Amino acid sequence: MPDKKRKNVGLIGYGFMGKTHSHAYKDVPFFFSDLSTLPHRKVICGRTENLVAEAAEKFGWENYSTDWEKVVADPEIDIIDIAAPPFLHSDIAVAAAEAGKDVFCEKPPALNVSEAKKMNDAVEKAGVRNMVGFNYRRVPAIAYARKLIEEGYLGEIRHFRAVYLQDWCMDPDFPITWHFREEKAGSGPTGGLHSHLVDLARYLVGDIEEVTGLTTNFVEERPIQESGDQLETKLTATGGEGRAEVTVEDAASFLAKFEGGATGTFEATHFASGRKNHQRFEINGSKGSLEFDLEKLNRLKVYSTEDPDAQQGFKDILVTEDSHPYIESWWPPGHLIGYANTFVNEFADFFSSYENGVYPEPDFRDGLECQRVLDGVLQSARTRSWVKLDEVD
Amino acid sequence: MPDKKRKNVGLIGYGFMGKTHSHAYKDVPFFFSDLSTLPHRKVICGRTENLVAEAAEKFGWENYSTDWEKVVADPEIDIIDIAAPPFLHSDIAVAAAEAGKDVFCEKPPALNVSEAKKMNDAVEKAGVRNMVGFNYRRVPAIAYARKLIEEGYLGEIRHFRAVYLQDWCMDPDFPITWHFREEKAGSGPTGGLHSHLVDLARYLVGDIEEVTGLTTNFVEERPIQESGDQLETKLTATGGEGRAEVTVEDAASFLAKFEGGATGTFEATHFASGRKNHQRFEINGSKGSLEFDLEKLNRLKVYSTEDPDAQQGFKDILVTEDSHPYIESWWPPGHLIGYANTFVNEFADFFSSYENGVYPEPDFRDGLECQRVLDGVLQSARTRSWVKLDEVD
Amino acid sequence: MPDKKRKNVGLIGYGFMGKTHSHAYKDVPFFFSDLSTLPHRKVICGRTENLVAEAAEKFGWENYSTDWEKVVADPEIDIIDIAAPPFLHSDIAVAAAEAGKDVFCEKPPALNVSEAKKMNDAVEKAGVRNMVGFNYRRVPAIAYARKLIEEGYLGEIRHFRAVYLQDWCMDPDFPITWHFREEKAGSGPTGGLHSHLVDLARYLVGDIEEVTGLTTNFVEERPIQESGDQLETKLTATGGEGRAEVTVEDAASFLAKFEGGATGTFEATHFASGRKNHQRFEINGSKGSLEFDLEKLNRLKVYSTEDPDAQQGFKDILVTEDSHPYIESWWPPGHLIGYANTFVNEFADFFSSYENGVYPEPDFRDGLECQRVLDGVLQSARTRSWVKLDEVD
Amino acid sequence: MPDKKRKNVGLIGYGFMGKTHSHAYKDVPFFFSDLSTLPHRKVICGRTENLVAEAAEKFGWENYSTDWEKVVADPEIDIIDIAAPPFLHSDIAVAAAEAGKDVFCEKPPALNVSEAKKMNDAVEKAGVRNMVGFNYRRVPAIAYARKLIEEGYLGEIRHFRAVYLQDWCMDPDFPITWHFREEKAGSGPTGGLHSHLVDLARYLVGDIEEVTGLTTNFVEERPIQESGDQLETKLTATGGEGRAEVTVEDAASFLAKFEGGATGTFEATHFASGRKNHQRFEINGSKGSLEFDLEKLNRLKVYSTEDPDAQQGFKDILVTEDSHPYIESWWPPGHLIGYANTFVNEFADFFSSYENGVYPEPDFRDGLECQRVLDGVLQSARTRSWVKLDEVD
Repeated sequence: MPDKKRKNVGLIGYGFMGKTHSHAYKDVPFFFSDLSTLPHRKVICGRTENLVAEAAEKFGWENYSTDWEKVVADPEIDIIDIAAPPFLHSDIAVAAAEAGKDVFCEKPPALNVSEAKKMNDAVEKAGVRNMVGFNYRRVPAIAYARKLIEEGYLGEIRHFRAVYLQDWCMDPDFPITWHFREEKAGSGPTGGLHSHLVDLARYLVGDIEEVTGLTTNFVEERPIQESGDQLETKLTATGGEGRAEVTVEDAASFLAKFEGGATGTFEATHFASGRKNHQRFEINGSKGSLEFDLEKLNRLKVYSTEDPDAQQGFKDILVTEDSHPYIESWWPPGHLIGYANTFVNEFADFFSSYENGVYPEPDFRDGLECQRVLDGVLQSARTRSWVKLDEVD
Repeated sequence: MPDKKRKNVGLIGYGFMGKTHSHAYKDVPFFFSDLSTLPHRKVICGRTENLVAEAAEKFGWENYSTDWEKVVADPEIDIIDIAAPPFLHSDIAVAAAEAGKDVFCEKPPALNVSEAKKMNDAVEKAGVRNMVGFNYRRVPAIAYARKLIEEGYLGEIRHFRAVYLQDWCMDPDFPITWHFREEKAGSGPTGGLHSHLVDLARYLVGDIEEVTGLTTNFVEERPIQESGDQLETKLTATGGEGRAEVTVEDAASFLAKFEGGATGTFEATHFASGRKNHQRFEINGSKGSLEFDLEKLNRLKVYSTEDPDAQQGFKDILVTEDSHPYIESWWPPGHLIGYANTFVNEFADFFSSYENGVYPEPDFRDGLECQRVLDGVLQSARTRSWVKLDEVD
Repeated sequence: MPDKKRKNVGLIGYGFMGKTHSHAYKDVPFFFSDLSTLPHRKVICGRTENLVAEAAEKFGWENYSTDWEKVVADPEIDIIDIAAPPFLHSDIAVAAAEAGKDVFCEKPPALNVSEAKKMNDAVEKAGVRNMVGFNYRRVPAIAYARKLIEEGYLGEIRHFRAVYLQDWCMDPDFPITWHFREEKAGSGPTGGLHSHLVDLARYLVGDIEEVTGLTTNFVEERPIQESGDQLETKLTATGGEGRAEVTVEDAASFLAKFEGGATGTFEATHFASGRKNHQRFEINGSKGSLEFDLEKLNRLKVYSTEDPDAQQGFKDILVTEDSHPYIESWWPPGHLIGYANTFVNEFADFFSSYENGVYPEPDFRDGLECQRVLDGVLQSARTRSWVKLDEVD
Repeated sequence: MPDKKRKNVGLIGYGFMGKTHSHAYKDVPFFFSDLSTLPHRKVICGRTENLVAEAAEKFGWENYSTDWEKVVADPEIDIIDIAAPPFLHSDIAVAAAEAGKDVFCEKPPALNVSEAKKMNDAVEKAGVRNMVGFNYRRVPAIAYARKLIEEGYLGEIRHFRAVYLQDWCMDPDFPITWHFREEKAGSGPTGGLHSHLVDLARYLVGDIEEVTGLTTNFVEERPIQESGDQLETKLTATGGEGRAEVTVEDAASFLAKFEGGATGTFEATHFASGRKNHQRFEINGSKGSLEFDLEKLNRLKVYSTEDPDAQQGFKDILVTEDSHPYIESWWPPGHLIGYANTFVNEFADFFSSYENGVYPEPDFRDGLECQRVLDGVLQSARTRSWVKLDEVD
């Protein structure tokens, strides 16, 4: 067994993403024990002392802090992991880069293109390792889809269609958490859900040239959230007295033209009854098609026009075999993995970059390009016109 | 267009099967117009005059009769089609064969092996064309499964597992139609449902050597059925006063050894809530597997171990393309057919035998072999032991 | 049995739709025998004499003709059924209405809004019965979806998303049939596929207010079609020498705002490998959702937020029970119907209008409203802007 | 946060199950941090020193040992966890019980009934906490199925049908690991796979009264396994020179009568091409049905006859909501868990028994009852007759 080098991580955020990241740091050494550089959970940071102390205990961190600037400045910290709401991404990332730290940042990349640019400029200037947390690239089935596409399985790609449907805040009495305020979140499902779809579209198909979008609101105001006195690692919250305005969209859809000539349709909403975490996409090419559904995340459906005529059909591949990406690190063939494992794969890739010298993807430049699409969609919805993405600033 | 020869059909029975057969005779010339020999709906026969008259009108028959012996004796009739309950199969079939008529008989083949033998002896002696109505062989997906198996797609077959689940008579107040009396039906789901599964097993895998079975009753008596005053082409009936004993099983399952070395599991029941016409089977071989579900009858799932490792998966073939059996006679690719179309295919095959000289399958010998398995299962359930089928008489 | 009145039908067109309509006329009396007014297949009309003669024989028509104007003028004809390509719809429909005939017209309604208006004006002026052949309204699962929506099962509707994906002409050597020429077809998948989706959207959700669309071409020219010397009831054709320009789109997608506040996404393409006749739509409302897939046409998935919390899920209803629309006329519960049956239901509804006095839906006004959306999409794609449908002429 | 009490675990076995258990011990404190008693990974034990040392490092154990008797005798150890092959279960369990340790034992319970009895006698005599590792009871969907059944959702249960299909050793050159030798494994898929199905049948339906079974062999000898020089946490192995006889069955199926009157069909095989870990079962009751498929482990399908007639259908519940068992400890609603999480739930239940005083289930008595069925099946296959389970010793 190689002599392990430990990198000290400072994690900013202790909510849902704080929990998934903590868990991933814990699992990386277990499943990817061949890595010679591994994370050490050094310090977790959050606003409220008793809660962050509780999180440190539960999630296995050595220390906690309530001051992210101190964490960023701490010379013992090697990596800053940003799992705080979007309005904090840019400030923390820039400070971390300037302090020479490697930076991992949860999606969506930023509040907007302007901030995403600052983030990217900072890490490029500092030359630090940087990655955006688009964990779905690390679903084995999606990584395998990418491999098939690279091998030409689909031929020339003509269509990408994707939806990301949820229903967790359909109740008009669900309180106005940060997700519903533009200054905190940047946008609604555009940033929260389309960011994933756009990153996957770029990963699997390529860059988008222009978009036309539509946004809608169904619930215009919501109860003010009670100040939390509990560690919240769930998308749940309790409403207090009074109501405040929702300043982001509840649903957003857009059409896209890809640079390579394919067309795209995208839809994301928080108002699809019964859809819990329903990310589904389909890609059609000249030689075949593929389909993925996050609610069946261990599967990939593929179709090839090169099968004998009578034998053509969508093949439902259980992406749980040793011939598939990431699987060898997990369990024997045929054993399903879950949502949280994608973060383990993601951080394993982040840490393997310390060994192979290849910087991890998607990086902050990818984040910026993704953000450009999101801003383009919102701008298009406002101006009711097509928006060319190279003109979005 | 060829000069058509018409064969006069005498149909005995005007219930559900009488309707499906009538419809099929009507559709054969429409979809299989290249056949030079085609059916003519000459006479339909049933017990009750006003009802058979109504059936003749609705189903497009030239005449009607209430006396099957007269129909069998009628020199104008070329083909006797038996769509009456099982207890009548043998008498009608033997008489028809002796009268030199070709004979088509609905499944199950007969009340029991003894009667199935008489039927087979009669048609063999008379040298008349004969066929048993196992219509599911004419589901394009199943015919295609057979083709794949013949081509070696599955390799050596190891397992056949099949269920046929329904729930139409779970209500204990559903009346005691002929299906629930041994002297009329021979058995319950053994004859009604397993007969289909056994025929498919023989068609796709081969002969069965021995069986061990289990039968059960959940409802021991049912209301006596009101004498019908309506044409009943549905599996519905109304209970009158009084109750009578159910003398057939409500559910039957069995294990089987095939002559070729494969093992089989079979289950049929009328007591599976929510299963309407749920016939499903799976076959596993050394080189692949296939799966069929009658509730998705236009599809066949196949798996091949010869696909590249990472690309193996069950392929969901939409069996609606011109490269698939029967489809060219129907609609353009991609258009689903339904249950009733299988009868059209079946009669098309029956009539094409007038042209190509090849007698249709499954014939009464197949019926006899199928019946042997059914009787074996019932005998095994009574004796609580394995039964070798070559010892069943 | 009631004394039947027969209506003489003149059918213009003998291709794929000519076959489906002929079959439906044949099946209506069989399955809907309670109707007192029934179709009589009087005359079928097509361009090429030997082919229309063959069609008349195969499809069971009393006469044939090569001159649609004579058929329209024939005093014996009661109903003109237009199953010819779109460029002929308006001329035939207007002439038929002026001759006092009832008119059934296949979809898409017309070449464009201008012609659809002429058609609607003509039938309104003449006061004749008129219907557009949007057969999918007669899929039992879709008719049942409408019923659920009317009963409030979904609550307030927020989203409609639909795709109609096919792959039959992906091969660039598939010849340039009428479908690929604007002057014959009006458009590509917009008229051919979106017309169905738009009609269903209007049927299930309501009118659309504005759209923004995108169209694409992947194959710019195709082989010139050989003059057919065979009856073509399939979407197949053979290429001859020389190539001609494709003047319609290969794929079209659009976003929509419904008058009631819902948003819509629509995509149709002929370039989705592996998708044969893949019409799928999902509707999300405040109280539930539903999903339909034409490749599983006997099923409807529904979700209700009113189920107990832990028991919520998409329910896969097999729409084959007597409690579902149309089913009682077909087979006992649990028996699947196919594509062609939807036309039988459709014509049964057309003929039942002779009895109940209620004119059938969707009528030519619905056709006009549908056409307005299609033209709006094409206009939007050209102008790269949102189009308000009440401004489309 | 409560003051935690740590229980020292000694784990015997470092293969696949050693890995899953180690992982679960690691995850329990993370997800079930409210427990006041938690596991401490004290010592892991295996035959080969360099491998067990490697396992200790990878899986996070404080010490390692190559002598299970010393581990059992170690006064610091509170719990013995047996993850070694079946032939060791009894010796270790009895010794552990006699040493006063709590005992957790992987499935199958034992080599045979005789050993299972010894194990149960020992723990009962010693009064120690004991549990058998039937982890699938801790799949949230299955725990929820149990809850629904207890609440009467299914009414009176009539049928249980289950398959457990795999294909990992179809290759005749897969070497003869302990799984293929009766003296090591007790049996083939009977112990390996049916043990799970039988435990679930007992959990969900109740005790089985009698069985009739069938076993088969397809591959009679296999290459001798090379002595491993690597930690094997996968179901993979390499063949060396020479071949040895397979002394267990490759496939086993049986019919069962439950004490409550239901019938059962069971099939397990290692020779189902394409089936990786395909455990599927369906239960039919007088008021409804349910269906589970381990390859879609976050889902449960349920059917209720109490839904309105036209709205009946199998509901596909995504068992990922806070109203479902175990979910609250994991992630926000809608996030899938994987195979390994079931072990975490299992050990959480084991440790919660230290707090609530209720001994965990399934215990060694359940193991014995399960083993009785397995032995009964094998005995029945040998004697070709029904076997009453209360006569199996």
